[in-house]
Amino acid sequence: MESKRRGILERLNAGEVVVGDGGYVMQLERRGYVKAGHWTPEAAVEHPEAVRQLHREFLRAGANVLQTFTFYCSEDKLDISGNVTNITGAQINEAACDLAREVANEGDALVAGGVSQTPCYVESHSETEVKAIFKKQMDDFLKKDIDFFMAEYFEHVEEAVWAVEVLKTSGKPVGATLCISPQGDMEGVPPGECAVRLVKAGADIVGINCHLDPLICIRTVKLMKAGLEKAGLKAHLMIQPLGFHTPECNHTGYLSLPEFPFALETRAMTRWDIHQYAREAYNAGIRYIGGCCGFEPYHIRAIAEEMAAETGVLPPASEKHGLWGAALEMHTKPWVRARSRREYWEKLLPASGRPKCPSMATPADE
Amino acid sequence: MESKRRGILERLNAGEVVVGDGGYVMQLERRGYVKAGHWTPEAAVEHPEAVRQLHREFLRAGANVLQTFTFYCSEDKLDISGNVTNITGAQINEAACDLAREVANEGDALVAGGVSQTPCYVESHSETEVKAIFKKQMDDFLKKDIDFFMAEYFEHVEEAVWAVEVLKTSGKPVGATLCISPQGDMEGVPPGECAVRLVKAGADIVGINCHLDPLICIRTVKLMKAGLEKAGLKAHLMIQPLGFHTPECNHTGYLSLPEFPFALETRAMTRWDIHQYAREAYNAGIRYIGGCCGFEPYHIRAIAEEMAAETGVLPPASEKHGLWGAALEMHTKPWVRARSRREYWEKLLPASGRPKCPSMATPADE
Amino acid sequence: MESKRRGILERLNAGEVVVGDGGYVMQLERRGYVKAGHWTPEAAVEHPEAVRQLHREFLRAGANVLQTFTFYCSEDKLDISGNVTNITGAQINEAACDLAREVANEGDALVAGGVSQTPCYVESHSETEVKAIFKKQMDDFLKKDIDFFMAEYFEHVEEAVWAVEVLKTSGKPVGATLCISPQGDMEGVPPGECAVRLVKAGADIVGINCHLDPLICIRTVKLMKAGLEKAGLKAHLMIQPLGFHTPECNHTGYLSLPEFPFALETRAMTRWDIHQYAREAYNAGIRYIGGCCGFEPYHIRAIAEEMAAETGVLPPASEKHGLWGAALEMHTKPWVRARSRREYWEKLLPASGRPKCPSMATPADE
Amino acid sequence: MESKRRGILERLNAGEVVVGDGGYVMQLERRGYVKAGHWTPEAAVEHPEAVRQLHREFLRAGANVLQTFTFYCSEDKLDISGNVTNITGAQINEAACDLAREVANEGDALVAGGVSQTPCYVESHSETEVKAIFKKQMDDFLKKDIDFFMAEYFEHVEEAVWAVEVLKTSGKPVGATLCISPQGDMEGVPPGECAVRLVKAGADIVGINCHLDPLICIRTVKLMKAGLEKAGLKAHLMIQPLGFHTPECNHTGYLSLPEFPFALETRAMTRWDIHQYAREAYNAGIRYIGGCCGFEPYHIRAIAEEMAAETGVLPPASEKHGLWGAALEMHTKPWVRARSRREYWEKLLPASGRPKCPSMATPADE
Repeated sequence: MESKRRGILERLNAGEVVVGDGGYVMQLERRGYVKAGHWTPEAAVEHPEAVRQLHREFLRAGANVLQTFTFYCSEDKLDISGNVTNITGAQINEAACDLAREVANEGDALVAGGVSQTPCYVESHSETEVKAIFKKQMDDFLKKDIDFFMAEYFEHVEEAVWAVEVLKTSGKPVGATLCISPQGDMEGVPPGECAVRLVKAGADIVGINCHLDPLICIRTVKLMKAGLEKAGLKAHLMIQPLGFHTPECNHTGYLSLPEFPFALETRAMTRWDIHQYAREAYNAGIRYIGGCCGFEPYHIRAIAEEMAAETGVLPPASEKHGLWGAALEMHTKPWVRARSRREYWEKLLPASGRPKCPSMATPADE
Repeated sequence: MESKRRGILERLNAGEVVVGDGGYVMQLERRGYVKAGHWTPEAAVEHPEAVRQLHREFLRAGANVLQTFTFYCSEDKLDISGNVTNITGAQINEAACDLAREVANEGDALVAGGVSQTPCYVESHSETEVKAIFKKQMDDFLKKDIDFFMAEYFEHVEEAVWAVEVLKTSGKPVGATLCISPQGDMEGVPPGECAVRLVKAGADIVGINCHLDPLICIRTVKLMKAGLEKAGLKAHLMIQPLGFHTPECNHTGYLSLPEFPFALETRAMTRWDIHQYAREAYNAGIRYIGGCCGFEPYHIRAIAEEMAAETGVLPPASEKHGLWGAALEMHTKPWVRARSRREYWEKLLPASGRPKCPSMATPADE
Repeated sequence: MESKRRGILERLNAGEVVVGDGGYVMQLERRGYVKAGHWTPEAAVEHPEAVRQLHREFLRAGANVLQTFTFYCSEDKLDISGNVTNITGAQINEAACDLAREVANEGDALVAGGVSQTPCYVESHSETEVKAIFKKQMDDFLKKDIDFFMAEYFEHVEEAVWAVEVLKTSGKPVGATLCISPQGDMEGVPPGECAVRLVKAGADIVGINCHLDPLICIRTVKLMKAGLEKAGLKAHLMIQPLGFHTPECNHTGYLSLPEFPFALETRAMTRWDIHQYAREAYNAGIRYIGGCCGFEPYHIRAIAEEMAAETGVLPPASEKHGLWGAALEMHTKPWVRARSRREYWEKLLPASGRPKCPSMATPADE
Repeated sequence: MESKRRGILERLNAGEVVVGDGGYVMQLERRGYVKAGHWTPEAAVEHPEAVRQLHREFLRAGANVLQTFTFYCSEDKLDISGNVTNITGAQINEAACDLAREVANEGDALVAGGVSQTPCYVESHSETEVKAIFKKQMDDFLKKDIDFFMAEYFEHVEEAVWAVEVLKTSGKPVGATLCISPQGDMEGVPPGECAVRLVKAGADIVGINCHLDPLICIRTVKLMKAGLEKAGLKAHLMIQPLGFHTPECNHTGYLSLPEFPFALETRAMTRWDIHQYAREAYNAGIRYIGGCCGFEPYHIRAIAEEMAAETGVLPPASEKHGLWGAALEMHTKPWVRARSRREYWEKLLPASGRPKCPSMATPADE
């Protein structure tokens, strides 16, 4: 692996595929370090070894970017979430930068400093107040060695635009992803228009993250792309969708599913679903391809393996993975050996083992 | 937490609940450290930080026992599995003991040295050869500080009996679990008879692990219990089932499901399924309650939380978990707040989000 | 029951609900009198007792209109369908009129003479040729005592317009229904525009029949209604949808489902689904409410029972039906007695008993 | 077709397949002539044309036996069922015999006079009283021209034995079918023992009808067969199962399903399911093969078509049916034409179109 890191825009401008990382909060909830409902990242200070290990697994899986574990890490959100730990947002942000940097340097990965939507926006709609929050977080990050910024998980494009405007003052590249559906943001601004506003605000990379499943998110990014083309604007496209099937979701996404957040297991994507997703995202012109909630390390590995045709490299974790199930060739049961091939897994329709459960739910916002 | 460790039999004889740990190989496969098809534990040497972290998560989740990460770690199995790493079984066994011990000592947990079925048994049926393999593994463990032995994942009770006979020579307590169905072992020996043979061979704890889902495994342990009672024998009962729904499985268990091993996601149990399992296992008289493949740290936490009524303690990871979803009370969406109660999650029938997939598969051995 | 029949427009102009009849060809296929694939109505001549009995069942179920059993009964269609019986279209049309009239007179029902799309249209696109076919059929009908005309099952609005133009020359009222989706007809003409063209051609009643399930068809009729309102036109609205669930269907409708036509059983609607449909159709402003393929007599009874609040009458067949399951009150099993109430059936989510089957299919035209 | 009718035993003794008819009460409920909950057959007097037509459809479909429409037609049952019609059981029985005879004579079919279990048995357990009821019904039948007797739908073998003992006094052949599961009758008498008792009482034909799906009923008949063989007894075997999938049913059968009786649609068998059933029944040594509730005329046609290899004849209704979908060859859509072959229909897994419904229910008696 080359030692001199090339920047995110250098890579994307060269037409390279950039593999993102997966979801931290849900995975660390399952591992015992994040509280569902709060979803705040104090574990970066409390249990750095757990965060470090998950970073490392994403790196091994092929991630070219590690995002700092700083989701919902604005002071106003921490307060609401019952931050009885007396750990400040600044402490978390700084610790998270160090952890991401440490692990990124074990490979050739970049570190993206992440900010997300604030409770302040919905309560105040004050550009001054909201921008002050983003400015404070940015300053935390700038004390540390990060490569670029990522504004993610915004339901309102207006707030995302404010975030981009602040982050651009750093001089670093800025990516921005909204957690919206093909219908547009919470104010009804269509995806194409959202993309235009973000790029005009200075975003170098735009796209979608969270809330909906991969194929739905690809549709939304395509609408963003079309909007940019129509406006004669250029930007890199990125996508970090859910690792769950959400075919029945409306505007609000998986928050409205009855299974959120403690019974989503049965919706989880297989690694083969991810191969399909990565290919379709690539075909749609998206080059920064990662995941959000539900994306575990092996899902990221699946992106990296599917993209190996383009990137020419397999990730370190593929040492422990036969491509398309190849390592099953040595299984003792003949019928399992028969599964050591791509065609088997591509065609499989996995059963839920839950005959008393439906296959689709009624979203709460229907 | 008390510092002086009480032994496994001391605890079980006192009628206490012992929470086992979860599955290592499948979880570490997803994290990038175990190769599916091979399923061998060389990561104990290659990537100790990954194994250490998973041990730690199970400990935080409430496990009272950590099993050494030594599944399939006999020399003959390692050879077959294409052990090109030149790491010996002894190296793995010793490293695995150290890792389990290190983490167990961070709490009040015991370390169980684990052995499992050997390819040699099926090929040779030679008592001498098979026992020599178990003896070698036992000697590795005895160089280290382990608390008791666990012979697990045996499809033939005869081989398990041989394992128990060897391990008993150590003077340490011995547990033994078979991966069989209510129909009995691969030779058709019924569960009740299997239990009798194991106890007569010296096993202090007997039960079932892997291959089938919790409710089916409880049925099998009940048959073992009935067999012991009929024979006038006494032993402690344990259970470490799959964390997957396998209602359609026959004798061979989940190996025969079309989804094994790379598309089992949709069969995964929720934490609420585990609450029900733990309660039913307890009601069946089982006191050593853990999990096998598919049991992630949060599933073990669910056992510990369900058993808190009996044990009087919540695990450390419950600091990051509202019981029965209580932490959702502070969610911004009113319909999510409505999920912060036991009744909601107990009644929920989770949808798969996969309307083109069946709910039951046809096992390969049907 | 009053003896003097009031005409269809008299009823609809008075704001009355008109209950249509159900599907003939699929039901008579199951009874052994129609050949699937051909779907032609020679049974009107060959087995009049079978057609008469089905008419009678729809009448008993509450139908206010009986359509002549003359689907696909143009000479060109009969030829293609391998009409080796030497029964002419004229013979069938006339026999069918007599049968419908005979049974309609047993109650207070009207007879609608039905024509449907022709192979000639797709082959020739000749207005002259296609109109000649409709003229010939109309002349057959005019030898008999029918009350009004129904042009139904048209995929192209242009052909339906031609049919309406011919039928209007009779001086009798004309209804026209298309078998199209909310996306419009096969040329992409949207439903609102289709309705406008039909009304301008002279149709007194317009709407949708066949191809898609009730709730989808209601959406399409709503689009027709909106189109008429926008154009400042007035017409009565009607609907005769499938009695099958087709949530995954696209433009082509149920023809594209893998289950068509011999494995649609598991999609069949219950009587309770029909109650919901009738209510929603009524609420959408539709007053002529019937069914097409899959609507058996008890489905028509369900429309009549749901509409009894508006019409003030129950159909004769309700003598053999406890409303909302009321007659189960006398069942010997207590749990069946508990089903003798509306709430039970409205909430029930019926299981398929087919755990190895999916819940949604992939349409052939996807 | 030969004109001289050969008796039921003549046919069975010669090793011939006898195709039974389908279910009357459920089908006539849907057609508007039977009241669910009551399930009594007064329509034989009130609406003879409806009963005659259904007989005729079963005959056309290939039935070699028509059962009289006399289900639950004992005076005590009629009283309980709210028989406000003042039509006596004798009137119904006699009218039903005439109807069956009239239609049977249109072909080569036999008429079986049917009796079923009585409320009196459960209330009184009086052999004298129960036998008097059967005697009265038998005397009604003997005034008419029937070919043999059928005692069917018995949950207690003791009552069925009493029925057989009475009916044998007529000198006519007697068949007897129980509506029990593989677990045995309501008193726990196993199927093999039930068969032995029935044959010792004089039954010439024994088997199973109603309550459970075809494949489960075949299992029960096999147990009956094994019981007879073990006892050194001989009898002909018959089967008339449900036309619904009931995989999750226990002892009580479909009465315990939440869908009974008004939402069973989605469990209905396709004609292709029936082909499989008929073949498996034949392979199990059963020669009298028919259906009960849920078997419509086209299901009986499917039995006759599957058995055509053995019988050498196709039923009259096959004139309106391309074998294995052959008539679809002429369909206009290419993808429908591709369905004109056996392999397509045999492999099809039909979708329910109901993604919010489960595939299995929880029976009320679980």
